Amino acid sequence: MTFSSDIFATRESEVRSYSRGWPAVFEKASGSWLTDREGVRYLDFFAGAGALNYGHNHPVLKEALLEYMSGDGITHGLDMSTVAKGEFLQTFQDTILMPRNLDYKVMFPGPTGTNTVEAALKLARKVTGREAIINFTNAFHGMTLGALSVTGNAFKRAGAGVPLVHTTPMPYDDYFDGDMKDFRWFEQVLGDSGSGFNKPAGVIVETVQGEGGVNVARAEWLRGLADLCKRHEILLIVDDVQMGCGRTGPFFSFEIAGITPDIVTLSKSIGGYGLPMALTLFKRDLDVWSPAEHNGTFRGNNPSFVTAKAAIDHFWSDDTFEKATIAKGNRIHEAFTELSEKYDGVSTRGRGMAQGLVFEVAENAGKVCSLAFDEHLLTETAGPSDQVVKLLPPLTISDDELEQGLDILARATAKVV
Amino acid sequence: MTFSSDIFATRESEVRSYSRGWPAVFEKASGSWLTDREGVRYLDFFAGAGALNYGHNHPVLKEALLEYMSGDGITHGLDMSTVAKGEFLQTFQDTILMPRNLDYKVMFPGPTGTNTVEAALKLARKVTGREAIINFTNAFHGMTLGALSVTGNAFKRAGAGVPLVHTTPMPYDDYFDGDMKDFRWFEQVLGDSGSGFNKPAGVIVETVQGEGGVNVARAEWLRGLADLCKRHEILLIVDDVQMGCGRTGPFFSFEIAGITPDIVTLSKSIGGYGLPMALTLFKRDLDVWSPAEHNGTFRGNNPSFVTAKAAIDHFWSDDTFEKATIAKGNRIHEAFTELSEKYDGVSTRGRGMAQGLVFEVAENAGKVCSLAFDEHLLTETAGPSDQVVKLLPPLTISDDELEQGLDILARATAKVV
Amino acid sequence: MTFSSDIFATRESEVRSYSRGWPAVFEKASGSWLTDREGVRYLDFFAGAGALNYGHNHPVLKEALLEYMSGDGITHGLDMSTVAKGEFLQTFQDTILMPRNLDYKVMFPGPTGTNTVEAALKLARKVTGREAIINFTNAFHGMTLGALSVTGNAFKRAGAGVPLVHTTPMPYDDYFDGDMKDFRWFEQVLGDSGSGFNKPAGVIVETVQGEGGVNVARAEWLRGLADLCKRHEILLIVDDVQMGCGRTGPFFSFEIAGITPDIVTLSKSIGGYGLPMALTLFKRDLDVWSPAEHNGTFRGNNPSFVTAKAAIDHFWSDDTFEKATIAKGNRIHEAFTELSEKYDGVSTRGRGMAQGLVFEVAENAGKVCSLAFDEHLLTETAGPSDQVVKLLPPLTISDDELEQGLDILARATAKVV
Amino acid sequence: MTFSSDIFATRESEVRSYSRGWPAVFEKASGSWLTDREGVRYLDFFAGAGALNYGHNHPVLKEALLEYMSGDGITHGLDMSTVAKGEFLQTFQDTILMPRNLDYKVMFPGPTGTNTVEAALKLARKVTGREAIINFTNAFHGMTLGALSVTGNAFKRAGAGVPLVHTTPMPYDDYFDGDMKDFRWFEQVLGDSGSGFNKPAGVIVETVQGEGGVNVARAEWLRGLADLCKRHEILLIVDDVQMGCGRTGPFFSFEIAGITPDIVTLSKSIGGYGLPMALTLFKRDLDVWSPAEHNGTFRGNNPSFVTAKAAIDHFWSDDTFEKATIAKGNRIHEAFTELSEKYDGVSTRGRGMAQGLVFEVAENAGKVCSLAFDEHLLTETAGPSDQVVKLLPPLTISDDELEQGLDILARATAKVV
Repeated sequence: MTFSSDIFATRESEVRSYSRGWPAVFEKASGSWLTDREGVRYLDFFAGAGALNYGHNHPVLKEALLEYMSGDGITHGLDMSTVAKGEFLQTFQDTILMPRNLDYKVMFPGPTGTNTVEAALKLARKVTGREAIINFTNAFHGMTLGALSVTGNAFKRAGAGVPLVHTTPMPYDDYFDGDMKDFRWFEQVLGDSGSGFNKPAGVIVETVQGEGGVNVARAEWLRGLADLCKRHEILLIVDDVQMGCGRTGPFFSFEIAGITPDIVTLSKSIGGYGLPMALTLFKRDLDVWSPAEHNGTFRGNNPSFVTAKAAIDHFWSDDTFEKATIAKGNRIHEAFTELSEKYDGVSTRGRGMAQGLVFEVAENAGKVCSLAFDEHLLTETAGPSDQVVKLLPPLTISDDELEQGLDILARATAKVV
Repeated sequence: MTFSSDIFATRESEVRSYSRGWPAVFEKASGSWLTDREGVRYLDFFAGAGALNYGHNHPVLKEALLEYMSGDGITHGLDMSTVAKGEFLQTFQDTILMPRNLDYKVMFPGPTGTNTVEAALKLARKVTGREAIINFTNAFHGMTLGALSVTGNAFKRAGAGVPLVHTTPMPYDDYFDGDMKDFRWFEQVLGDSGSGFNKPAGVIVETVQGEGGVNVARAEWLRGLADLCKRHEILLIVDDVQMGCGRTGPFFSFEIAGITPDIVTLSKSIGGYGLPMALTLFKRDLDVWSPAEHNGTFRGNNPSFVTAKAAIDHFWSDDTFEKATIAKGNRIHEAFTELSEKYDGVSTRGRGMAQGLVFEVAENAGKVCSLAFDEHLLTETAGPSDQVVKLLPPLTISDDELEQGLDILARATAKVV
Repeated sequence: MTFSSDIFATRESEVRSYSRGWPAVFEKASGSWLTDREGVRYLDFFAGAGALNYGHNHPVLKEALLEYMSGDGITHGLDMSTVAKGEFLQTFQDTILMPRNLDYKVMFPGPTGTNTVEAALKLARKVTGREAIINFTNAFHGMTLGALSVTGNAFKRAGAGVPLVHTTPMPYDDYFDGDMKDFRWFEQVLGDSGSGFNKPAGVIVETVQGEGGVNVARAEWLRGLADLCKRHEILLIVDDVQMGCGRTGPFFSFEIAGITPDIVTLSKSIGGYGLPMALTLFKRDLDVWSPAEHNGTFRGNNPSFVTAKAAIDHFWSDDTFEKATIAKGNRIHEAFTELSEKYDGVSTRGRGMAQGLVFEVAENAGKVCSLAFDEHLLTETAGPSDQVVKLLPPLTISDDELEQGLDILARATAKVV
Repeated sequence: MTFSSDIFATRESEVRSYSRGWPAVFEKASGSWLTDREGVRYLDFFAGAGALNYGHNHPVLKEALLEYMSGDGITHGLDMSTVAKGEFLQTFQDTILMPRNLDYKVMFPGPTGTNTVEAALKLARKVTGREAIINFTNAFHGMTLGALSVTGNAFKRAGAGVPLVHTTPMPYDDYFDGDMKDFRWFEQVLGDSGSGFNKPAGVIVETVQGEGGVNVARAEWLRGLADLCKRHEILLIVDDVQMGCGRTGPFFSFEIAGITPDIVTLSKSIGGYGLPMALTLFKRDLDVWSPAEHNGTFRGNNPSFVTAKAAIDHFWSDDTFEKATIAKGNRIHEAFTELSEKYDGVSTRGRGMAQGLVFEVAENAGKVCSLAFDEHLLTETAGPSDQVVKLLPPLTISDDELEQGLDILARATAKVV
């Protein structure tokens, strides 16, 4: 063995988490499967928390990457102009932006979700000269101080060690189970100069809240939000880090609503191959940055640009992929609806291939994941009480693999409820 | 051509910066050289702002990486236990930590410098229950809100869009040209309950301030700081993102002072190959994190672990590399001293292979870099007035290459002064 | 003349305000009347914004004050024990606290409303170790930084010059015209660890929002709030600076709800004679202050203690005064209801002798006040759009005086609508 | 007896402080003397912490006040124009401002020191559009959140319950015992765009720090500060709440330096009779307030205006009073110098009639005050370790009274050292 069996327990910080729920040492990966060092194979229904929409080590991307790396293509490019970046930009423009009529400028922040969120918040504040940001209940946007301030989870927030300020949560879609008109509270405080709310620079929203428990915003709610922002001259930021890149069907998760956010964040699957990469997109007239005003060492992770371009070429040249995702999403929904109808205290919600199985007795969700792991299926819980089994399978998963995993979940649910 | 010649100008955000000073489109890279798409070769004296200490695409690391990627080694591993991570941890423990008598726990935050700084600040606050942090004049620690709050540059700070608080700068070593005893101000406010300073959770310091203008802290100053922190029960954070991984000679830049910081941040060259990776190291008794209290999608960028391990094995198994770095650093210092003696208004400072050529007339530094680029040498300015030509060549640079670049700088300086 | 006629215009800051709406130079005052230096008498329906509940220079209080001052009673007493303070405390305990079963400790902060609010917020934070405070839409609590942070008015808030943080407004009673269940939003975020709300130290509330537009909280809403605070271990602060001391009938405005706030602020009329004085009251177990932790030069304004004691003795030994206030309040309400029924776009709301005449067309309220001034009646507007004529007559006003003023208002309304 | 003997202990909050060091119940006061209810007389060397510069119940002021109150002069005037205010403004303009060539606009904030400081900070921020404020080590400016943020004392600061931000302390005059050039640190950070300091809106300073331990700023230091502020376009705020109104000799304590601050705060003795009153003075072009942007119920405490005018007429029509103050100050200094020379570990510092006796062994200061109280002399300690006996006798004290008190202090010191 090449390392001591207790190296993780003795040397890695207690902050580690996934390694606790999935107590294996993984070695290889391909498509929807991970293999541990004893050769045991695990079906991956979590896909790098949404960073592996195209599965592990997809052969088309792999080929492009190996060719690039073998040929001494630039690895680390700061924010220099490189061929890999140029090709990515051209493809992203021609295949993603133009067909969707989105004339966004493209910023390369540091290559992580939290970094693109920080860039988006800074830009919104810079453009408007205001400091307040509206976020939503149960939002998740990242762990650095700015992103954490718009994240809802109390446990994560407490980690800041300083009070998190300048942000105020508004109720997300359906937070009141239909008891209250959409945006009733939000609209009223904006229109009331005595409300005590500072006029916000921007609103940051996920179209589906993954970490928050697979909460789905309806298209009409998103349109209402976009309309409210426009009327009040507030910038609308859609954080598409987890739900973008096809997770819910279309490339951008907000497409179903027919809206054009002012700023969009992308990361996770944009690099295609699970490599770190992030983008901040914004309307042309918002590009008021001075050169180097927001920088970072790894914003030119060129291998990601190569696989990002290859992924766009391969998956997004027509609508086959989008349709397949929706179909598979429907299949998961169908299976989960069956479970919901069969068992008390179980319900389901989701969009595309972001689907949740919700348990009234919160700890049942964790039990299901644990039982699933025993059958070598990787899943995770989400929501403020970890009451949701959250499914984010690779979008490239085969129908057979999908059924295999759904069967395991059905069995686990049966045991638990 | 595979992309429109104006794609960068029309599609990429105005925030881009290095591409302005170095107006070429780079394609390939090897060792100390970058090649643009017209085949022109550039000698790299900047090395990814310190992220490429082992040069571009080092053959030993490349081989390890290609083998790993070809064999479907895990690419994206969240914070799961993986073989690549286990091997990295074992090597890092055996070759780096143990011989230096450093029993640090190892945290994998998001794979960027700013993220490890955010993790360090959060941990210092969590451990002490205090929120104030002391930073230093002309410090640079990153662009996300927490890291930006300990960064000195007024232009970068203004980008925050909110007041940056909870931090107070202290004078860095030699800030007063010897007019004031080390730590006179810092010690006095700590000992004075009427000073108006909240007792800090931690102090964050770079042993050499790269972005700040290649300002060098003496070993005795660092020892004084460590001692002060100990006496006042303040945590000492050394941000070794740029100066670590051998840049100044030893693996950790603080080794020359014989101190043991409470928390250390690493990024840039830790991955070895210019791939995104970061570590937060801290004393065992500070590991009070709860599982998942600070997380992030790309903290398990396994290809980096592979090249990180290979780099440690290759370069750090004995002291050959460290000695070579110091020798080359001395050579740069010698050459710069010559220029300083020859020309008025020119001086030099630095440590190891982080060296600066300082111009009294600030714009001369920029002119030198521009002239150097005309001769295909890549360099950058640093300091609050961009008055310093900052050299960060690959540590693996050959003597010939080094002389080649130093000659270009000598010619450029001659023209400018 | 003893001073230049333009001394106010040329020497006093532009911040002055009441002197603009009431362009006279006042000289003397008695009961419900002010007299300007030309001898013109004005009927006062504003009573020092609630600081003159017992009218101007009430003879009983005046006698006590003159006797005290003539006999060289202590004027300025810091927070020393004095006879005047001892007598006030004894009376306040025996006549106000004990009969109401309120075992509050009594703190003398600086002698203004904003100062007692600051003391209350500091105490709530100290006791709980939390920093967040919940306030309500259209709240008004004062102009110093802490009190301003819980004040709703955007214009006043902007005066802070720094972002006001650590506070989040909740909807006040009837903010949604009955469209939403009381505390639906508040309860839900408290019960949801993903809501993004930090658990608050305390809630600060006015039972009737004077400055906010004479918004009246129902008794059951106040009970709901007290219950919510108790269940979630949040401290309930009732800011009774304007509505206390009998303004709404009972001594404390919260008595009608049968609740016992954790902390109560008093100022304005507590001194009885319009002299600066303030109290912070809190439950005995909350008295965790260290000596001198909150201090101030004028917290021992002994002449106020003398008139405060005399006022309590004179007005609060039985319930005559309370009943008279309620009766006069009913009379105002009756008169305003008549106007509301007679004219479109006019409505009324209030409690006790804090009553508002609300105009749909906001500027009509200002016009009414202006016309009233022409007939020598002093009134003011309130509310976020200054859409409310706010009545705060001396509680000691005679029925005749009351009718006289109401007649003027009726005529003014008739002209304006 | 008119109140229970334990009413203070059982009913008043634990926050009370002076009543602990001076355990008597005071009843009457005149000139330099307080009398308790048993008829014991106490010589007052503290004078309401500087609020009683003209002694207790001065007969000239008393007469004016009684006449005004008897004649039903307006007591409570909000910020209406009144005869009392007009007369005060005229006198203040003619007797104080004009002869000193100070064309200040006069603002009446709430009637306390902390309120005028809050107004000053808000104005500085509003005028400059910046939020940072520079204060000094060991400063004391008040207890409300804004004023507390510029106060140095750690114990008081902790009472805020929230982090105090937007302010950074600079070393006060002689903080380094001459080891460092004046303003070396301050100047350097202002001139260094990489220092990490946000450009401040204003600087707030006391010319002598009373609470901070009777620290005296030299005239040349104050001039240096004024010059620095001018060169960097930062507003200079002199907080003259305790040292103004003649405490150090001239009416404004900054007169000795020949500077003209941009903003000046006054309170404590401005009302003359120990009655609550405060002023914020600022240069004419800084009067950018909108009407009512900063308000407050008791900013028109008209009885104070009457005694304030009478005091100015009586004491400030020529320089007799100023000269007498300086002479008495010199006498105290002489007596304290004698003690300093006689005893080890004793030193003295001060200006005018603000004088301190400093003990190397901090607790000796408290012991001296305690022994002095036994001989019926009221004094208090100051400084971060309470190591200074701070003398603030009435400026009107007779030579005999002064000697009497100094004798007591000499005896007490002899016993303690």
